[in-house]
Amino acid sequence: MAAEIVNPRSDSKSGTDADGASDDAFDPAFALHRGGKMAIQATVPVRDKDDLSLAYTPGVAKVCSAIAEQPELVHDYTWKSQVVAVVTDGTAVLGLGDIGPEASLPVMEGKAILFKQFGGVDAVPIALGTTDTDEIIETVVRMAPSFGGVNLEDISAPRCFEIERRLQERLDIPVFHDDQHGTAVVTLAALRNAAKLTDRSLGQLRAVISGAGAAGVAIAKILIEAGIGDVAVCDRKGIVSTDRADLTDVKREVAGFTNKSRLTGSLEDALDGADVFIGVSGGTVPEEAVAKMAKDSLIFAMANPTPEIHPDIAHKYAAVVATGRSDYPNQINNVLAFPGIFAGAMQVRASRITEGMKLAAAEALAAVVADELSADRVIPSPFDERVAPAVTAAVAAAARAEGVARR
Amino acid sequence: MAAEIVNPRSDSKSGTDADGASDDAFDPAFALHRGGKMAIQATVPVRDKDDLSLAYTPGVAKVCSAIAEQPELVHDYTWKSQVVAVVTDGTAVLGLGDIGPEASLPVMEGKAILFKQFGGVDAVPIALGTTDTDEIIETVVRMAPSFGGVNLEDISAPRCFEIERRLQERLDIPVFHDDQHGTAVVTLAALRNAAKLTDRSLGQLRAVISGAGAAGVAIAKILIEAGIGDVAVCDRKGIVSTDRADLTDVKREVAGFTNKSRLTGSLEDALDGADVFIGVSGGTVPEEAVAKMAKDSLIFAMANPTPEIHPDIAHKYAAVVATGRSDYPNQINNVLAFPGIFAGAMQVRASRITEGMKLAAAEALAAVVADELSADRVIPSPFDERVAPAVTAAVAAAARAEGVARR
Repeated sequence: MAAEIVNPRSDSKSGTDADGASDDAFDPAFALHRGGKMAIQATVPVRDKDDLSLAYTPGVAKVCSAIAEQPELVHDYTWKSQVVAVVTDGTAVLGLGDIGPEASLPVMEGKAILFKQFGGVDAVPIALGTTDTDEIIETVVRMAPSFGGVNLEDISAPRCFEIERRLQERLDIPVFHDDQHGTAVVTLAALRNAAKLTDRSLGQLRAVISGAGAAGVAIAKILIEAGIGDVAVCDRKGIVSTDRADLTDVKREVAGFTNKSRLTGSLEDALDGADVFIGVSGGTVPEEAVAKMAKDSLIFAMANPTPEIHPDIAHKYAAVVATGRSDYPNQINNVLAFPGIFAGAMQVRASRITEGMKLAAAEALAAVVADELSADRVIPSPFDERVAPAVTAAVAAAARAEGVARR
Repeated sequence: MAAEIVNPRSDSKSGTDADGASDDAFDPAFALHRGGKMAIQATVPVRDKDDLSLAYTPGVAKVCSAIAEQPELVHDYTWKSQVVAVVTDGTAVLGLGDIGPEASLPVMEGKAILFKQFGGVDAVPIALGTTDTDEIIETVVRMAPSFGGVNLEDISAPRCFEIERRLQERLDIPVFHDDQHGTAVVTLAALRNAAKLTDRSLGQLRAVISGAGAAGVAIAKILIEAGIGDVAVCDRKGIVSTDRADLTDVKREVAGFTNKSRLTGSLEDALDGADVFIGVSGGTVPEEAVAKMAKDSLIFAMANPTPEIHPDIAHKYAAVVATGRSDYPNQINNVLAFPGIFAGAMQVRASRITEGMKLAAAEALAAVVADELSADRVIPSPFDERVAPAVTAAVAAAARAEGVARR
């Protein structure tokens, strides 16, 4: 009955696994993760009979009755309005892919503690044992009474698009797929500043996005909403264009609202004369293609750990270079967006996160470093303490302006 | 679009609602509940780039990969094995009944902080927006990868029985309906000590349980497992006996394993000559019926806030009186059981909570006050710090002995 538990750190010798897993035995990441990275904390005392009679029976009954009579009071008298469910099915975890719900939990816990640390938002990892679109949706809908928001995480495309859309239709709390919109908001913020630094408006820029997954599609949408000149999205087969017969529903939609210039062909064809490269695909772009981009190009090569264009190559041609890595300047890191976006939305009890709220988040994020712009500083550091308050305030204000705030 | 939020505490005048709800405006329970009673806490630092690279990308990827290769490692490197989902559908909340998931949340948060305070166990309230048995089961099964245990709470009978049974069949983590088994364990512990105090064995006692809901059925089961002489369960129509044609499936099962004496008739008929009264029903037992019980009777009138037999009446006839109230001696309080039961089960990663583990919990709980027994002290105080460690150790040992421990 008892399953054997093998602990990679309990073995005093290393190097027995063929795949090298046991080389990790002494990795400090394992020591840090032992027992998990988070805990529950009571915020009220339960030390004696009097405490218990207020926080639990009989006192709690009055609070329950009040909420039963006036459902909105749940926001005042429970943690609902400050807690986000971080929901995944474990199908698109980091660069690891479909590793299942249990193996995704360390990422979801990491996300949860980033929510807390950077946005003051409580978050609970909910890794689901199903990858069925309908089942994921039903499960989240049923859990929703307990949460003030839903952060979808690491769910593979194209299911992530349908899951988010249908949950947004059914729930009256924010539902936000961070792999799409978090990345899109931070990218737009960095691009705003990069354009400003090089004396161009977004309308003057033609961008090429390598990658038509969750992030690529969301970046294309937000750039167009923000007024970029044109954007072409490329998948493994080349430019996503209306003349292609092999497109999924989502890519057909992308082909419809992008590529005003009606480009066809490969990623390299698209890059010829382009002002902006945005990589969210992995893969490698040959230097010859980079060389053909317009003068003062802006290169955001965000694949982790290996950027699509190495920064050393990119710097030979580009005015601004950004990556997804923390060891280079201009890290496009979602943690700059999601904590403040949820904090702002939940502060005003927004029923959803609108496009306007995302654009406001990007503007506020860009504005944090507006007075200190340089080629190595088009986006703040994740540890810049001005970020979360600025994003929170901007998102809350935008929610009010757009009529989705409930207080 | 914006719903009006009415805050009972923001109104400086009281006493306008016909139902008296606004009398609660200045109740300290509301002040205590503002903003909820719990929060998430990071247990690892995320203050700088190095922290982030261990707790989140890229460091976390190694931990995810290790779990993907060896699924049992999820218990070592995430909070799964220390976090319980407190699951309800809000249909049987305290004495309030079917008030829905949102209104049940203050109770679930209360339960969660009791888990933490008394057992060191993390717990997350999951109030579900469905009362359908199949949907509740499917939802919990899908969430289960994220949790080390499931505490079912305040789900109405008879659905609670089927939901618990089917979840136990499908999951390999403890599933425990506290309204049944928590109450049963504490009742048995108190009864053991009360019998000891009055120099009787459990086998010499005939008990009458008033109430055939979740608690009544579970108490009947555990008393029989513990070897009580006989037990009759009564519902509103009288003694649950095999000759009745109006029984639900669960009550028919109860009739099968209880009532060896083949009593028929009313609760008062059952009490004639009985040694033990256990009230988990509400309602009132007339003094004449109490007077007909055997000498040195043991009266556990646990309805809240109004015991079925007032302690002043009970003391006229009984050797030991217990209630569910904190303002009388011998409070039968579930918090004496569930924190230690889950802590013990999860400490050894038990795949389920067996009957033996529950009996062990009751014995350990009774033993805490074995040397200081008196009529007013057959069960420890909820704040007795010896309780949780004793229950935890006993449950862990029983899990090992019964072969359900996985470490």
